[in-house]
Amino acid sequence: METKLTQLKELLYEVYDLQAAAALLGWDQQTYMPPAGAEARGQQLSTLEKLAHLKFTSPEIGRLLEELSPFAESLDPDSDEAALIRVTRREYEKRTRVPAEWVAEFAQVTSLAHPAWAQARAESKFELFRPHLERILDLRRRYAEFFAPYEHVYDPLLDDFEPGMKTAEVQAIFQALRPKQVALIQAIAQKPQVDDSFLHQPFDEEKQWQFGVEVITAFGYDWQRGRQDKSPHPFTQGTSLDDVRITTRVYPNFLNAALFGTMHEAGHALYELGIDRALARTPLASGASLAVHESQSRMWENLVGRSLPFWEHFYPRLQAYFPEQLGRVDLETFYKGINRVSPSLIRVEADEATYNLHIMLRLEIEIALLEGALEVKDLPQAWNERMQAYLGLTPPNDAQGVLQDIHWSMGMFGYFSTYALGNLISVQLWERLRRDIPDLDEQIRRGEFATLLGWLRQNLHRHGAKFQPQELVQRITGSKIDPAPYVRYLQTKFGRIYGLEEDLAL
Amino acid sequence: METKLTQLKELLYEVYDLQAAAALLGWDQQTYMPPAGAEARGQQLSTLEKLAHLKFTSPEIGRLLEELSPFAESLDPDSDEAALIRVTRREYEKRTRVPAEWVAEFAQVTSLAHPAWAQARAESKFELFRPHLERILDLRRRYAEFFAPYEHVYDPLLDDFEPGMKTAEVQAIFQALRPKQVALIQAIAQKPQVDDSFLHQPFDEEKQWQFGVEVITAFGYDWQRGRQDKSPHPFTQGTSLDDVRITTRVYPNFLNAALFGTMHEAGHALYELGIDRALARTPLASGASLAVHESQSRMWENLVGRSLPFWEHFYPRLQAYFPEQLGRVDLETFYKGINRVSPSLIRVEADEATYNLHIMLRLEIEIALLEGALEVKDLPQAWNERMQAYLGLTPPNDAQGVLQDIHWSMGMFGYFSTYALGNLISVQLWERLRRDIPDLDEQIRRGEFATLLGWLRQNLHRHGAKFQPQELVQRITGSKIDPAPYVRYLQTKFGRIYGLEEDLAL
Repeated sequence: METKLTQLKELLYEVYDLQAAAALLGWDQQTYMPPAGAEARGQQLSTLEKLAHLKFTSPEIGRLLEELSPFAESLDPDSDEAALIRVTRREYEKRTRVPAEWVAEFAQVTSLAHPAWAQARAESKFELFRPHLERILDLRRRYAEFFAPYEHVYDPLLDDFEPGMKTAEVQAIFQALRPKQVALIQAIAQKPQVDDSFLHQPFDEEKQWQFGVEVITAFGYDWQRGRQDKSPHPFTQGTSLDDVRITTRVYPNFLNAALFGTMHEAGHALYELGIDRALARTPLASGASLAVHESQSRMWENLVGRSLPFWEHFYPRLQAYFPEQLGRVDLETFYKGINRVSPSLIRVEADEATYNLHIMLRLEIEIALLEGALEVKDLPQAWNERMQAYLGLTPPNDAQGVLQDIHWSMGMFGYFSTYALGNLISVQLWERLRRDIPDLDEQIRRGEFATLLGWLRQNLHRHGAKFQPQELVQRITGSKIDPAPYVRYLQTKFGRIYGLEEDLAL
Repeated sequence: METKLTQLKELLYEVYDLQAAAALLGWDQQTYMPPAGAEARGQQLSTLEKLAHLKFTSPEIGRLLEELSPFAESLDPDSDEAALIRVTRREYEKRTRVPAEWVAEFAQVTSLAHPAWAQARAESKFELFRPHLERILDLRRRYAEFFAPYEHVYDPLLDDFEPGMKTAEVQAIFQALRPKQVALIQAIAQKPQVDDSFLHQPFDEEKQWQFGVEVITAFGYDWQRGRQDKSPHPFTQGTSLDDVRITTRVYPNFLNAALFGTMHEAGHALYELGIDRALARTPLASGASLAVHESQSRMWENLVGRSLPFWEHFYPRLQAYFPEQLGRVDLETFYKGINRVSPSLIRVEADEATYNLHIMLRLEIEIALLEGALEVKDLPQAWNERMQAYLGLTPPNDAQGVLQDIHWSMGMFGYFSTYALGNLISVQLWERLRRDIPDLDEQIRRGEFATLLGWLRQNLHRHGAKFQPQELVQRITGSKIDPAPYVRYLQTKFGRIYGLEEDLAL
């Protein structure tokens, strides 16, 4: 059995290496690649992905998994070996259910859909994208059928991002959350708005960069095992457990993009850098799910980076970088400014209090489309109605509405909810770790993050993808993903900032 | 047959894409990779190379080549299709002669030899490297045997870098060249030395970089299809015909490294960027050989970049960048300084007049080792004797002698002569293109390089690896690689700089 396990690992290492190469090619594409290299890069990525897929779904791996499964059941289910066989087998069975013809057609359809979406958004003409989205939707329905029977047609799609999670679970979570968030932003809307005009000034780009570096170095980001570069869209890309890179963008007239973007991506990177080396080069050498990943980026960005203790330490530093812009802005004003709540049309610009509503809208629409309750042609109207209901806004055009996100044009359905679930998990973990680290606020106030990072590594990071997201959250916090901590967090934080104590009956 | 050719191309595209991915991983390793990423990167490169090798040597490709060969013979031998089948078949037959066990043992032995060499060089202790070099030599002799019968045991090794070239040819070329070069440097040694002290001053690194960019932009290097980064050792790396990158290093107190290094690498890059797109993603999408590649880097570095017409145009620009350092150095002094001839111990620092002698020494030693006429234990002594005979110098230690180059530690035998052959080819081409472009000097004097680059593209670059080096040189210049033009060039150039007219009876 040991031999077979070694054989399996050797094959998985090769798959990982191919994926790692593709990861670096993708990183380069968005950072340093000369513009004319795009066409060849597309071919290279396509070849690497195809070869990785063929290798992972090879009969040889299937046979080894088959033979190893009884052995895996004899092991401690928490052991690396049992988890490796279990997780790999699950993924193998999923991937081998999808016929090569579907994969080829999907690649073809999305490769046309993506530029069509870009053009539709540029011209704000949904009609240009509509036929492509219809084809994608049709393909996604057929994809779900490969996994029949299912509880809900959306389940197989969600499962690609949140292994083991069911649509009904996400719906229940969001149903509990939605009225509370809507009530909160309605209450905030009744209050005087806080000032954040000082964030919109010229800020030297090099100094912005340096401050971000200072912050994430304090977080514990290890520059021997990572680096930061500029890219139009910030992202984190690991090519191994010892090389997890981040990118950021710097706006010359707005502080938030680089400041919080850098912390966000560092949160993703710290997660992957904390995975146990014993899991290297296997399917376990990644985050447990997109939501769990997002919980880590959001924790460092919001629970740390938008907190008062954090700025008690770092604000004097930031003022030293920008005396002209921030010298006369006091800490309290700054803190409120970076936490300003204001319903807006664009998801990626949304604040903590409104963000999840953007997600719920998308989840409901995706489910309705999959179920057939909503047709693509009626999508812009459905979008705008929900925007009005949840956020009190109606987009002036589709570019700022239904066409704003790239995801559907790439065929990704089931992705959006991971953003909101990540927010919820971040606070759920935070409540738990505050109990374990009673002086967490004091540590943060001193600019010390080693205990926090150590806790995350010990309780979460090191496990990699050994456990499914719900199981992992349960193990750490004692319950599955739960919206209550997040609601408490929003109410307390924004209750204080906006003076809502009476309104929300805190 | 068309279908089979398409099948062959599809398979070769995949091999190329794997190699291109490895190329990018290698580029990243030497430019941006965080230090801790090295181990995983080594694994990734090893996997990609293994998969590329397995795919290229697959029975499927063998069968297609077999079936296509009669078809290839019915085609115009200069056609892309005939060349593709011919060149691929030759490479396939070479690679499939080498057993997997040898490849594995070679990888193992060289992976140990390389750090041993680094340590031996650091401590200047040849004994530390000796047993590794003995193993490598043994492996290289066994490698040659896979290609028996051969004219000379060194032929199969040389062929890996210079397809089709024989040891006897290289020996004949070098035999004709050596006495002339030795006589030249002896004559120079009798003359007053030229001054180059002004090259050794503090030069702002950013300005050095900018000047280099200005020069190679004038050469025609296309920044949409390439980029320049810093690395400890300069190199050129293509990841496709539309993405050929260069690196350089900048010394704060010495002008030459960045200045001529940038031109050298740009020469390599211009070659690959000029290959016909019809050859993309195939074994023909590369230079004809290392020597032909080197002819292009040396041409731009030396025949253009160390010429008087070039500096008649660019020297005022360089003085404007560095008025303090060069404002009082006149053009003639500068020109002589950058062309100073001075026998030295280290190959990579050698000037044009002495460089080839470093190569001849290595070639003779490699051949003697392979033939068994020289034993590894006697290598340092053999090295030092030849250094004295050719350059009049004896290394004070092995670090500055036999241990200076990395090549043998990586198992590369047969590589060195390509550097000298490249020098010869560069001048041979130059004589030809001067006949075709009578006002070449005037164009260079105006900073115009479009006609030169156009000539190189038309006559050389576009062919990629369609023709073997000797055939290619013959097609362009009317004769095979010939040392006479290089001798004429050295004698004229350095005759003028050192006032040797009488001595060399010009």
